Amino acid sequence: MNTGVLDELVSALRCLPSVGPKSAQRMAFHLLQRDRAGADRLARALGDALTRLHNCARCNTFTELEVCERCSSPRRDASQLCVVETPADMLMMEQTHSYSGLYFCLMGRIAPLEGVGPKELRLDRLLERAADPAVREVILATNFTNEGEATAHYLGEMLRARGLAVTRIARGLPVGGELEHTDIGTIAQALSERRPA
Amino acid sequence: MNTGVLDELVSALRCLPSVGPKSAQRMAFHLLQRDRAGADRLARALGDALTRLHNCARCNTFTELEVCERCSSPRRDASQLCVVETPADMLMMEQTHSYSGLYFCLMGRIAPLEGVGPKELRLDRLLERAADPAVREVILATNFTNEGEATAHYLGEMLRARGLAVTRIARGLPVGGELEHTDIGTIAQALSERRPA
Ligand SMILES: [Zn+2]
Ligand SMILES: [Zn+2]
Repeated sequence: MNTGVLDELVSALRCLPSVGPKSAQRMAFHLLQRDRAGADRLARALGDALTRLHNCARCNTFTELEVCERCSSPRRDASQLCVVETPADMLMMEQTHSYSGLYFCLMGRIAPLEGVGPKELRLDRLLERAADPAVREVILATNFTNEGEATAHYLGEMLRARGLAVTRIARGLPVGGELEHTDIGTIAQALSERRPA
Repeated sequence: MNTGVLDELVSALRCLPSVGPKSAQRMAFHLLQRDRAGADRLARALGDALTRLHNCARCNTFTELEVCERCSSPRRDASQLCVVETPADMLMMEQTHSYSGLYFCLMGRIAPLEGVGPKELRLDRLLERAADPAVREVILATNFTNEGEATAHYLGEMLRARGLAVTRIARGLPVGGELEHTDIGTIAQALSERRPA
């Protein structure tokens, strides 16, 4: 006896990660009964984001431009290229204020169990980016999870085979830890203690 | 260095209940990188729900009609009026298949700590609905949480003062329990064991 429109909203909310049927129902109820302005804002924010955001041609993060502001900035050190898994990880790196190089955002990691291999990650774009003669060092800053480590290992082999100097941020993070959930100081330390990969 | 559009999406996602800054960031990333179709569907579902859904003039639940299908149905027993907190609770009651009366959905409960009193809940609409001469019994099916109990107590006093027969579903639910998280059988039992309130 839910109406179709309400059912559809509850279903659509389930496209959000880790939102099950009960949560989706609670969210729909909250939005419709308590926060219609918020629901309207969310609908418009989604529409805007879909229309205007795409992947930066250089670093692969989300941007409204063809090449993002960071990649275009003359103040960044183009000799260093730091590889991260997600835009959130990139933000964490920036907040350490101990890195002024450029980035490449994988938008994921190698995860064989989920069917994500080198091809699905489109690592050819990273190779192309790293082939820029300005790049002197590639810093691998994937997570220290099993998948992040496997990704770093794979990238290390791949990039060294092309004659690039490759380093890995130090294991200052706890085993199984993720950048996104680590304090800035620990990330800064891990960055300063990076070692050859 | 997030773009404005991305920041706005992350902020807007925080209007969802129990979504903090990290979850919002993860959701935005997921939608933009992995499920653009889902994001588009969600944006449209929100828009449709906002445009088309409002509160039923009789039972106060969400509907696209002036009076919802259930309230208009000749097959429902108009002598019984069951009061629930949310549309989700109403669905749970329906799934017991042991109730064929009508409903009134409070869309909340009395919660003094959150500034929700009888006035904020607009209990005048319930009084008006219960004043329908067809109504012979009002069944209170608010949750057995402290707030749900307080609400039932308040409603019991208020409705009895107007000469209505008021019952409360039986405490078959565990103390502190919520309808939404209870199995159908227990709810059915609690319904059949309702007692004078
Ligand atoms: Zn860029
Ligand atoms: Zn109705």
